[in-house]
Amino acid sequence: MIKKIFLLLIMPSLLLSGCYYGNLSEDDDRPDYVVAIHGGAGWILKENISEEKEAAATAKLNEALEAAEKVLQNGGHAVEAVEAAINILENDPLFNAGKGAVLTAEGTAELDASIMNGEDQNAGAIAGVKHIKNPISAARLVMQKSKHVMLAGEGADNYAADNGLDTVPNAYFITEARAANYNKNHPDKAPVHKYGTVGCVALDSKGNLAAGTSTGGMSDKEYGRIGDSPIIGAGTYAHNETVAVSATGHGEWFIRHAVAHDIHAMVEYNRWTVERAADFIIHRKFKYYDVNGGVIVLGKSGNVAMPFNTPGMYRGYLKSTGEREVKLYGEE
Amino acid sequence: MIKKIFLLLIMPSLLLSGCYYGNLSEDDDRPDYVVAIHGGAGWILKENISEEKEAAATAKLNEALEAAEKVLQNGGHAVEAVEAAINILENDPLFNAGKGAVLTAEGTAELDASIMNGEDQNAGAIAGVKHIKNPISAARLVMQKSKHVMLAGEGADNYAADNGLDTVPNAYFITEARAANYNKNHPDKAPVHKYGTVGCVALDSKGNLAAGTSTGGMSDKEYGRIGDSPIIGAGTYAHNETVAVSATGHGEWFIRHAVAHDIHAMVEYNRWTVERAADFIIHRKFKYYDVNGGVIVLGKSGNVAMPFNTPGMYRGYLKSTGEREVKLYGEE
Repeated sequence: MIKKIFLLLIMPSLLLSGCYYGNLSEDDDRPDYVVAIHGGAGWILKENISEEKEAAATAKLNEALEAAEKVLQNGGHAVEAVEAAINILENDPLFNAGKGAVLTAEGTAELDASIMNGEDQNAGAIAGVKHIKNPISAARLVMQKSKHVMLAGEGADNYAADNGLDTVPNAYFITEARAANYNKNHPDKAPVHKYGTVGCVALDSKGNLAAGTSTGGMSDKEYGRIGDSPIIGAGTYAHNETVAVSATGHGEWFIRHAVAHDIHAMVEYNRWTVERAADFIIHRKFKYYDVNGGVIVLGKSGNVAMPFNTPGMYRGYLKSTGEREVKLYGEE
Repeated sequence: MIKKIFLLLIMPSLLLSGCYYGNLSEDDDRPDYVVAIHGGAGWILKENISEEKEAAATAKLNEALEAAEKVLQNGGHAVEAVEAAINILENDPLFNAGKGAVLTAEGTAELDASIMNGEDQNAGAIAGVKHIKNPISAARLVMQKSKHVMLAGEGADNYAADNGLDTVPNAYFITEARAANYNKNHPDKAPVHKYGTVGCVALDSKGNLAAGTSTGGMSDKEYGRIGDSPIIGAGTYAHNETVAVSATGHGEWFIRHAVAHDIHAMVEYNRWTVERAADFIIHRKFKYYDVNGGVIVLGKSGNVAMPFNTPGMYRGYLKSTGEREVKLYGEE
């Protein structure tokens, strides 16, 4: 009888109500650790990229994953793993973060970054810094040492320098390739919205999630423009009970739709799976609004989604189970 | 038969699934227009406030409501109404926004503001400006004229000035009372976290929602600190299908929990009422995390919620139906 009531009432209620689409995976299956990274979404097509560049990008993504893995294997916190991976990408001129950042309309590099600890929703962000070598480390410093979440401009540069982070002249960030692109494009005002933001999400052995994002922003941006990367809720979000998210793409749209927090909310309130929430943003909302970009999303059970709607996205993940993937292009 | 299937299958699915807590009010009952404002939550107690100050604050809140009403009566857009109300509060030294802003650790005024149009999720924000007389107007300018959502520091000041907004020397913002407080408190480093952020939410006759927030931030803040007020999703959010929200209180916590977007998400995904979503933040989450502040929330059907957990909050609303309220203290 009870079985009959279940079949007649409760089963259809779950199926028909539209509220219980997916089942969050069980924690029993959670890998000891997981890390996923991106190096930006954009017009990344095999025919446009030399074999050397392809090999260099692949090697660097693997190096970043392994730097995070080393932290996680030693029982380190997810926040530490996120910082370690992003530092590798910031220091490499291939990516639009740290060294190799794109230039503002004024020809300078202005860097943004944010980091969030899913354990306690603590977060740190810096925007528009010009002299901190590793912006993600400055974001972590703000999170852990200051009473604030977000510092911008000279105040952020000074705070990081006063607390012992490495500083560099602005010219350190500016590679020959970016300078040539600036000179080529600036006189005729043809903006090149080159993306290449980097990000990382990690799950550590204690079940803590963390997310971080670092960028040089949009090329030819107005002086003082802040994109989504340093905005908690837009480019970065982490909550141990749901997901860690890092986004890349058209930052203004990500702010207006609070993309990273929205994915968290869909998992928390709708009980959607990580995959469903990420796909809804990238393949439904992006399509509707004609927006480009991608996200990496890591669920509390270790499942990874990395959807994008551009031709390619530098991306990769690895799990303690040995599962591993590094890819650059779409539909490989 | 069809009725029987409905009763047996679909009705219980709605009742049992736990997904259909509240009923969004019907649009048939929507007033022609509604506006609600706040002037900050904090230690606002009747015994601490002189009769003169009480009268002045009440009069100014009424003046701001009426400025917005005038726009809405003439068929103006909700965004325009929000700007009109906030301009009144920014120009009055009673509130911690525009003239009368609290001072940074360095003794300067640094102003933040944001505005959002619920119709299309367009948004604008400025952070750390020192010379724009009306920060909310600069936020609206960024929303409507620039390709960006957020500009900070000198870049924001210059952008607003180049586009013809009124500029003032930084001293314009600094009242005698704030300067005295700074001098009194600074030498012994006793921080006075004085709140007084202002905000407005409006619903116009076409059903558009808008929200705006403007502030001088937290007193004694680090140079370059950005709080929640200019962060879309934290201090401000608006979506025509759900709510318009403006928040006031401990900004760092509002960023970490993306409070304004979270209220939108609870209404969108949980189908909670405006009142339930606002109360959940203020009376459940705030209690759990030991945080203080308040929010004003206006639903698409014109219902208003203005919960806070401090002794008082400057607040008020009016509707085209003639319903109207202006209050300063709790449990009046």
